[in-house]
Amino acid sequence: MKYVYTLQEGGKRMTSLLGEKGANLAEMTAMGIPVPPGFVATTDACAYFLRTGNLPEECEAQIKGRLPYLEDLAGKKLGETLTVSVRYGAKVSMPGIMESILNAGLNDETVKNLAREGGDNFAYDSYARLIKTFGVVILGMAPEKFLPSGSAKRDCDAFKKAIEKEKRRFPQDPEEQILECVRGIFRSWNSQKAVDYRKNNAIDNAMGTACMVQAMVYGNLAGSGTGVCFSRDPSTGKKKLYGEFISRRQGEDLVSGRLTPQPLESMKRSFLSAYAELGTIASLLESRCRDMQYMEFTVEKGRLYVLEAATAKRAVQAAVRAAVEMAEEGFITREEAIMRVNPYEADALLRKTIDATASKIVIIRGTGAAPGAASGEIATDPKKAAELAATGRKIILVRKETSPDDIPAMAVCQGMAAATGGATSHAVVIARGMGKPCVIGADMSVDYETGTVSAGAAVLKEGDTVTVDGSTGEIFAGEVPMKEPSASNEFETLLSWCDSFASMKVLANADTPKDAEKALKLGARGIGLCRTEHMFFGERLPMMQRMIIDDDKTGALDAMLEFQKQDFIVMFKAMNGLPVTVRLLDPPLHEFLPDADKLTQEIAALRKEDKDTIQEEKILENVSALREKNPMMGLRGCRLGIVFPEIYRMQTKAIIDAALETGASPEIMVPMISSWKEMEHVKKIIDDAAQDFMTKQKRWANYSVGATIELPRACITAERIAEHAAFFSFGTNDLTQATYGFSRDDAEKKFFTKYFKDGILEENPFATIDRHGVGALMRIAIEKGKRKGLKIGVCGEHGGDPFSIEFFNSLGIDYVSCSPYRIPAARLAAAQAAIRKKGISS
Amino acid sequence: MKYVYTLQEGGKRMTSLLGEKGANLAEMTAMGIPVPPGFVATTDACAYFLRTGNLPEECEAQIKGRLPYLEDLAGKKLGETLTVSVRYGAKVSMPGIMESILNAGLNDETVKNLAREGGDNFAYDSYARLIKTFGVVILGMAPEKFLPSGSAKRDCDAFKKAIEKEKRRFPQDPEEQILECVRGIFRSWNSQKAVDYRKNNAIDNAMGTACMVQAMVYGNLAGSGTGVCFSRDPSTGKKKLYGEFISRRQGEDLVSGRLTPQPLESMKRSFLSAYAELGTIASLLESRCRDMQYMEFTVEKGRLYVLEAATAKRAVQAAVRAAVEMAEEGFITREEAIMRVNPYEADALLRKTIDATASKIVIIRGTGAAPGAASGEIATDPKKAAELAATGRKIILVRKETSPDDIPAMAVCQGMAAATGGATSHAVVIARGMGKPCVIGADMSVDYETGTVSAGAAVLKEGDTVTVDGSTGEIFAGEVPMKEPSASNEFETLLSWCDSFASMKVLANADTPKDAEKALKLGARGIGLCRTEHMFFGERLPMMQRMIIDDDKTGALDAMLEFQKQDFIVMFKAMNGLPVTVRLLDPPLHEFLPDADKLTQEIAALRKEDKDTIQEEKILENVSALREKNPMMGLRGCRLGIVFPEIYRMQTKAIIDAALETGASPEIMVPMISSWKEMEHVKKIIDDAAQDFMTKQKRWANYSVGATIELPRACITAERIAEHAAFFSFGTNDLTQATYGFSRDDAEKKFFTKYFKDGILEENPFATIDRHGVGALMRIAIEKGKRKGLKIGVCGEHGGDPFSIEFFNSLGIDYVSCSPYRIPAARLAAAQAAIRKKGISS
Repeated sequence: MKYVYTLQEGGKRMTSLLGEKGANLAEMTAMGIPVPPGFVATTDACAYFLRTGNLPEECEAQIKGRLPYLEDLAGKKLGETLTVSVRYGAKVSMPGIMESILNAGLNDETVKNLAREGGDNFAYDSYARLIKTFGVVILGMAPEKFLPSGSAKRDCDAFKKAIEKEKRRFPQDPEEQILECVRGIFRSWNSQKAVDYRKNNAIDNAMGTACMVQAMVYGNLAGSGTGVCFSRDPSTGKKKLYGEFISRRQGEDLVSGRLTPQPLESMKRSFLSAYAELGTIASLLESRCRDMQYMEFTVEKGRLYVLEAATAKRAVQAAVRAAVEMAEEGFITREEAIMRVNPYEADALLRKTIDATASKIVIIRGTGAAPGAASGEIATDPKKAAELAATGRKIILVRKETSPDDIPAMAVCQGMAAATGGATSHAVVIARGMGKPCVIGADMSVDYETGTVSAGAAVLKEGDTVTVDGSTGEIFAGEVPMKEPSASNEFETLLSWCDSFASMKVLANADTPKDAEKALKLGARGIGLCRTEHMFFGERLPMMQRMIIDDDKTGALDAMLEFQKQDFIVMFKAMNGLPVTVRLLDPPLHEFLPDADKLTQEIAALRKEDKDTIQEEKILENVSALREKNPMMGLRGCRLGIVFPEIYRMQTKAIIDAALETGASPEIMVPMISSWKEMEHVKKIIDDAAQDFMTKQKRWANYSVGATIELPRACITAERIAEHAAFFSFGTNDLTQATYGFSRDDAEKKFFTKYFKDGILEENPFATIDRHGVGALMRIAIEKGKRKGLKIGVCGEHGGDPFSIEFFNSLGIDYVSCSPYRIPAARLAAAQAAIRKKGISS
Repeated sequence: MKYVYTLQEGGKRMTSLLGEKGANLAEMTAMGIPVPPGFVATTDACAYFLRTGNLPEECEAQIKGRLPYLEDLAGKKLGETLTVSVRYGAKVSMPGIMESILNAGLNDETVKNLAREGGDNFAYDSYARLIKTFGVVILGMAPEKFLPSGSAKRDCDAFKKAIEKEKRRFPQDPEEQILECVRGIFRSWNSQKAVDYRKNNAIDNAMGTACMVQAMVYGNLAGSGTGVCFSRDPSTGKKKLYGEFISRRQGEDLVSGRLTPQPLESMKRSFLSAYAELGTIASLLESRCRDMQYMEFTVEKGRLYVLEAATAKRAVQAAVRAAVEMAEEGFITREEAIMRVNPYEADALLRKTIDATASKIVIIRGTGAAPGAASGEIATDPKKAAELAATGRKIILVRKETSPDDIPAMAVCQGMAAATGGATSHAVVIARGMGKPCVIGADMSVDYETGTVSAGAAVLKEGDTVTVDGSTGEIFAGEVPMKEPSASNEFETLLSWCDSFASMKVLANADTPKDAEKALKLGARGIGLCRTEHMFFGERLPMMQRMIIDDDKTGALDAMLEFQKQDFIVMFKAMNGLPVTVRLLDPPLHEFLPDADKLTQEIAALRKEDKDTIQEEKILENVSALREKNPMMGLRGCRLGIVFPEIYRMQTKAIIDAALETGASPEIMVPMISSWKEMEHVKKIIDDAAQDFMTKQKRWANYSVGATIELPRACITAERIAEHAAFFSFGTNDLTQATYGFSRDDAEKKFFTKYFKDGILEENPFATIDRHGVGALMRIAIEKGKRKGLKIGVCGEHGGDPFSIEFFNSLGIDYVSCSPYRIPAARLAAAQAAIRKKGISS
């Protein structure tokens, strides 16, 4: 069995066996890109090791057998001056999660050879690093056992003694070292940190890692350095070589975030030819891989070596720009460009930005490393930050340096800032992918003990609110006003391509003229849901309350009629011929009623002052009578319209009146339908009111009446409901609620945490549609509705969720409707679903 | 087209054309039973009339053509001494709803001929009755226009004048009178009263009525009389001629309830031969029709005429006894006997009866006319009685006389009493069918003006509570203690037959040892649902509350464990090997929590007294935290068991411990399952706890774990749930709630009334299963469950509803489980469903 491949033997398609890094290195070797010579122990060897605790005998033999090959290519010998790096590399990248071992092959003798080459300091520094990493990574010792004393030579002795005292003698034989390192890399696949990371990122535990053994190149020699480079700007996608470089250091120093590097352009001063070569390699790789590239490299005594290359992790802004530009360059197809952008990240493209016109005080300056802006309270401890964020507080994580350990906290915070670290450190790469605004190299000092952040004269404490701008690198005091977001030109272009590929239309849930305008700007093809009860939040609420409470509703209804009509006129005009679906009143009554407890207190207070309480008591009485034990399952939706037909009559009149005035053809949607009899009954109320009004006006408007399908019974009996409806619109929130028999409110508060923890639920069914239950009911209804030729849409929360959109597309839904800000992501998801369905995509 | 059939031409199978009465009369004529000669205008003629407002010309001609035939058979001539009755008769009987016209053919001349035969009084009384009925029924005048003056002769003139003044001249031509009467009968099919009755009784409006024209026989001559007769006692089913008779009266006087008649035996004194002939005819009809018979008859000058015969309406007690005795006599089959009893009425067989040992005061005595006993407040106005009953008050309707107008009120009252009226009056016949206790001929006077009821020295007012005993005819002051019901021997026999035909078993919902015993007595084949949370109502409630509220539940759970175990031991012992299904805790929390409002008040009161309120405040805080917006959709069912596994562990331990002690094999049911993951998870909790306990005890019990299917998602995903469950039990109450998306509480209070009124709902889906929605979901789940070989039952309220049971049988359900008192009806319904399915039944 072949357990070891040289980089000359491997190739790009062997990622399962050689890992992503290994396969890429082999590919680059084949392309003639300067890569340090080496070989890879396969994931098969890893699997064997994890199963048995030992390397396969053949594998040990093959590794030993390849060492002369390495010596040949490197032109150095083990035991003399050849040292190697031993690195992990799985099929899927896990940045910063597992450790590499550098400088293996050094021992008490060879370190002297190295010292002759690069000086004592360099040699013993390298040796101490090997001993320390060996102790920590291979032998599992605590990092605190390896604190530097100031003298690298002294450290070497102290570290070796520490290892011998606690574990065993530090091996002096280079071959033995290398084999131990390979075993250690395989073993670390199952470290707690790695297992947690894979769990959080849904990476298969069984895939294992490959292990690369490569000749070392030293960035920490004189005339050397190390850097990271992107073929385009990872924040914006702009086509230019972008990256960071640091002289006389090894790569680990840069990506760990402990040091602040120089911009890549700084190479031009002393490493011009390497810089030029980098540009050539970046272009070469981009054209071969047809996507933005990321490289880690080292310059050893002026000579460039590429240590790693991969498709770049980048901010979604960059992904969009790169994809669009590549498609326009004819490099990739438009479908490919569309598939390149993760719709879950597209929301970040519409993040608010700092309002340039607002007055604000910059208290700290740094480098913008991940675009966007966010406000929140300062927290300096990642664990505490995560806890606070879990309670719903908005948190900005502020750290001395960026570290992969902070990633779980970053996921739940609004944004972050660090005093050191470069834009290419692992942690910042991840933050950018998450769409979290991030400022690095911030000019501040952070004291973890006291939780204070000092910058010049300013001293901030945990809990103080700041605003970070991840584009400019500024940190402001307090909460700074934000501007409404707008899509970039490239994003607009991409979305316009999307619309031409999508088979589902994307409409908007918009309840006010302002929302409608916003939705249009973001590309909505109409309004799929206008919730008329939402038109009465805010200052109009008392009118709505009177309508609910009063026995004689005439007065309240007359007042509401005029407001509704005016709103509809503005909306219909704004949509200018695009479809507008108006849902008749569906207030779960409790959401609109005055609070009974508060009323009771008010009455008590009035009484105390000997004031008259008759009116308040009457209201309280009515409120109490209307109170329901389970308002979600009470007098709402069309039930309300059936018990009080005057409400739906008023609304019909307002809609038709506005339609006559604007020439619109509104679609009227009846909420909470559970039976065809309800649908027939309400349709008659609407038709009668409409006919009556139009006859009086002697003018005629087109309108249609449809059903909201949001109860299991409506799905099951959809065929008969379809006989009385012109369209179906799925209210997936309520449908999910009824199908599962739990309310979102109560479920999320009381038992979802436990359900996720125990693996009973994998996704929140209120965010991503439950395909097996709710989806199966939808399928039944759609089949029945389609048979009658109905238009069918989704207007629940799920209409904006990319994963759900994929499913809706497979069901043959005609449109989804979602809140304005989710429209771009929905357009993208709809296009991707259609492309995937047609099998066109890569 | 033939629109008119003589009674000699018609036959029993022609009910659609001749109506039930007409067909029966024709059949009797063919059997040689003395029936006054006559003919029938068909329902086709009626349909034509209702469509056009006119009789078909052929029909008029055929009626006129048949008059000589009538004269021939009667031996009298129209215009001389022949008079006729004109009566309605639909396919379905509508007792007391439409009017008949008697004595048609009388005019100013012929009345003199009649006077020669029977005296002036008799003749003019008959004539006045004709004129009045003609005015009211044919011309639609108010009955108040025809108030008697004391002299029948004067009345004739006054009534004729009243008609002429308001409408037209009273027709003197007998032929014209007869045609007018036929038209009037047809027209009255659409009277408000008739339309309402048909609506309430689900009778097809389109069927129309036939109209019979028969030679009059006069019960109001000397030596004459009229009566009603049953082939068996309609209250008890005892085989003996039973009925009432009244001398010198027409039949209308008797069935209207205005007069109190004599028992049938009184005929023996003056009408012995007619009485004997009645007995013969009753036997003849019963053997021909194979069921209990009811007859209306008149004796005219000693000669018996049967005016009407039909299968007898009778109390369900009588139906049972007659059916069982007929089956035992070999007259009908056991299947037929089972099909004879309406399971909806079977509940009445288990009505409570007056406790003979209780001290009680009889204040009024009368005749028991419909068995059973009931207590309630007196109401003397039927409309007010119905309104009060609708608010949930228990009402006894007390009237001067029984009248069909009271039927709607009777339906919602507990029972009734009337001063006059016989046991065979229409209203009482209906009351008996409804299972309402009824006392007639009560020795009391009723004043409608003041709403008082006087009997001897006692004066009762509306609102006073009385108890009526419909078997003994006694009325007691106040609420008298009742005895637990027990089934009659005949009913026990019938039910034992049922069990041998049924394919579904009937189990009981029983939560306490006492319920279990009761259920066994009533024939339960096991316990299909033991709701463990119900074991903690009453004095154990504080324990349950502590369990819910306490953060550390150990103390409360330990206490509950012992109680549960003891309860289970008693139940398992009582059921002695029959299956017992225990449902783990499913408290919608709000049903068990202390009331927050009350707590707030308590705290305020304590504070006022400067007392310590720390404990109360802590409780209030916990209660508030546990409060849910929609508790029906909150932390309940298995969700509670997943969040607090210690609760289900405790319950498992109690069940297994009791099983070990009694040798029972309990079935453990998990509530509110919505996904197979929940089921898998909870089953593991149960299995682990059971194994743990049994291993410690070193003894082993058999048990199985099943799922309550009460959420739409459980139905849709039943296949995977079935992989982890030994049985399914449908909780149809919750399933109905979730499928419709309305809660029973809120729906019944807020909008069902309107829904029924508008015809949006025809049945309450919480009482009778909704076949199209909930039923369709059940069908999906059953198919999936059966494929895995699961036992499947129904444990919701619907398990005791006969109409729903029929449906469950068609779905292939293995058992239904219902509350103990519904078991007999359920056994009957299950047998009927099986018999109907096999197509054995008539």
